[in-house]
Amino acid sequence: MSRALTVSIDAMGGDAGPGAVVSALLKTSLRHPEARFVLHGDEAELNALVSRQARLKDCVSVRHAPGRVSMEDKPSHVLRRGKDTSMWHAVHCVKAGEADVVVSAGNTGALMAVSMFGLGIIEGISRPAIATIWPTLKGQTIVLDVGANVSASEEQLVDFAVMGEAFARVILGLERPLVGILNVGAEDQKGNDAVKGAAQILRAANLPMAFHGFVEGDDIAKGTVDVVVTDGFTGNIALKTAEGTARLVGSYLRQALRRSLLSRLGAVIAAGALDTLRRKLDPRAVNGGVFLGLNGVVVKSHGGADAVGFASALDLAIDMARADLKPRITEARGRITAESIQMIDKVGEL
Amino acid sequence: MSRALTVSIDAMGGDAGPGAVVSALLKTSLRHPEARFVLHGDEAELNALVSRQARLKDCVSVRHAPGRVSMEDKPSHVLRRGKDTSMWHAVHCVKAGEADVVVSAGNTGALMAVSMFGLGIIEGISRPAIATIWPTLKGQTIVLDVGANVSASEEQLVDFAVMGEAFARVILGLERPLVGILNVGAEDQKGNDAVKGAAQILRAANLPMAFHGFVEGDDIAKGTVDVVVTDGFTGNIALKTAEGTARLVGSYLRQALRRSLLSRLGAVIAAGALDTLRRKLDPRAVNGGVFLGLNGVVVKSHGGADAVGFASALDLAIDMARADLKPRITEARGRITAESIQMIDKVGEL
Repeated sequence: MSRALTVSIDAMGGDAGPGAVVSALLKTSLRHPEARFVLHGDEAELNALVSRQARLKDCVSVRHAPGRVSMEDKPSHVLRRGKDTSMWHAVHCVKAGEADVVVSAGNTGALMAVSMFGLGIIEGISRPAIATIWPTLKGQTIVLDVGANVSASEEQLVDFAVMGEAFARVILGLERPLVGILNVGAEDQKGNDAVKGAAQILRAANLPMAFHGFVEGDDIAKGTVDVVVTDGFTGNIALKTAEGTARLVGSYLRQALRRSLLSRLGAVIAAGALDTLRRKLDPRAVNGGVFLGLNGVVVKSHGGADAVGFASALDLAIDMARADLKPRITEARGRITAESIQMIDKVGEL
Repeated sequence: MSRALTVSIDAMGGDAGPGAVVSALLKTSLRHPEARFVLHGDEAELNALVSRQARLKDCVSVRHAPGRVSMEDKPSHVLRRGKDTSMWHAVHCVKAGEADVVVSAGNTGALMAVSMFGLGIIEGISRPAIATIWPTLKGQTIVLDVGANVSASEEQLVDFAVMGEAFARVILGLERPLVGILNVGAEDQKGNDAVKGAAQILRAANLPMAFHGFVEGDDIAKGTVDVVVTDGFTGNIALKTAEGTARLVGSYLRQALRRSLLSRLGAVIAAGALDTLRRKLDPRAVNGGVFLGLNGVVVKSHGGADAVGFASALDLAIDMARADLKPRITEARGRITAESIQMIDKVGEL
């Protein structure tokens, strides 16, 4: 492309407001001086914020969008009535070819609906998925779907495997990411029909993919595989259960350290170490889910993200825009022909 | 009953072996001097272990069972060929009315199959469930199903709600436990058909139950409700994801404390506090899942449980045997008539 790499931003989507978005831009524009940013939202408010920052003058432009999607708006309502919103404008800026990637901290369901409607789904993929980057004992693991769908057929799980593998190559820089399907046991006979069928297809199809087989819930944090495939119902619940558990452990730790004067002294001395711990567990550091399977890149920042969190979503968006996942997904998906799936289904019936 | 409260124990089931079972008995028999215990397994090995402990002479009896269920045995294989195993004998001791509750650290799938076959399912309940006690910010929450089934219909989720509520009254000592259904969002329109249908039934049926509605994954550790209802696929993955997350946080903490000499000094001083933390998170302290919905009480101890873990499963078993859950489950389930479910289904179609 002749123009610079451009990020389209829904500046009104997050709880922290456009102020946090502009603070995030100050960080990201330092790290990526070549990138350009288009802010969609209330023109007067955004111009006032941007004009105060000399460094943003050349790399940021503002486009007026009077409407705003709230966290309570139903996706169907936004599709019918939301054409004036900052979210809609931000997505359609990518559709029009004026930007390479869109970032929003807004309503996830609405963002998925507007993105599917505006950008369309990659040919051969039946449903998009939301992928997240999960910290593990070994580093990082991609988990998908964490909430785009409330169920998944065997073929949809296969799509997720193909998309997650392509994502892991690009974002984790792995040459041959190991892919596993989340299940209640590692043995072949365990699980529901969808996971068993997907495993059969991934084993039988002639894919250039390192398929590990089934993994269990504790394998995510162990880092047993690089990509964990699951339906959006289970994936969303697993993700939020992990967040809740991390907070519970943190709360236990604080209680334990407060209990005695001696341990309070220890806590003061150990404060540096606890800061390191906090940084590693900081959800802002690996902020941003990515919508995979669309004809365009969409990064969803956490709704409650502050400037640090939004900046890390912007960084992820720039990495995604540089890497072109679509050809790899299309190629891998093309290898799983309808005939091969039918064949496997027949073998399964025997 | 005229005989003393009696616990039937599969002494050969766990990874730690019968030695850990006998050590656990030393602890539990101190806490419950009135209880009796029947050990099923290799007679020579068990007698040698028990005879060394004078205190166990009067409260423990040994019954020979030559066979043993391995962790790899398929449930169907155990049903066909497992009649000589310690697990089979332990379950059938309850069936014969010689004991009130059975405890095993063996193969979960086999234990469920042998228990369903041997004890039968409570009338009106379609499938049993495994309930576990989850530590939370507020205390403890019951989560079920965590692995008896790989899916659940709306009616099965309703059964789980009824059984979990009865369990929470007895084990958590609550007068009016708050029940929630695990979902991907708290709003009514979110989720798959099973959770939406179950919520409709629980709202409409005239049950003496405090139904909260939907909860999300992070609500488990928050303690938002006392009983979290989910299908066995999602529940098992949520439980193991939480275990993995707790280990990950523990590992980060150790790394952080080791990093510098100063923080090492802090760690030494804070050691007492960290011990408290470890005890709170110790999976052995809340060891044991309970099979609900059977005509008899079955407590499953963790396969890797040591003496401390097995003793806490024995304590839970004794509490369960003292409380008689079955009448409450039957009564509550009886209020949800086929007519009321059909009526709700019709309203749902409108």
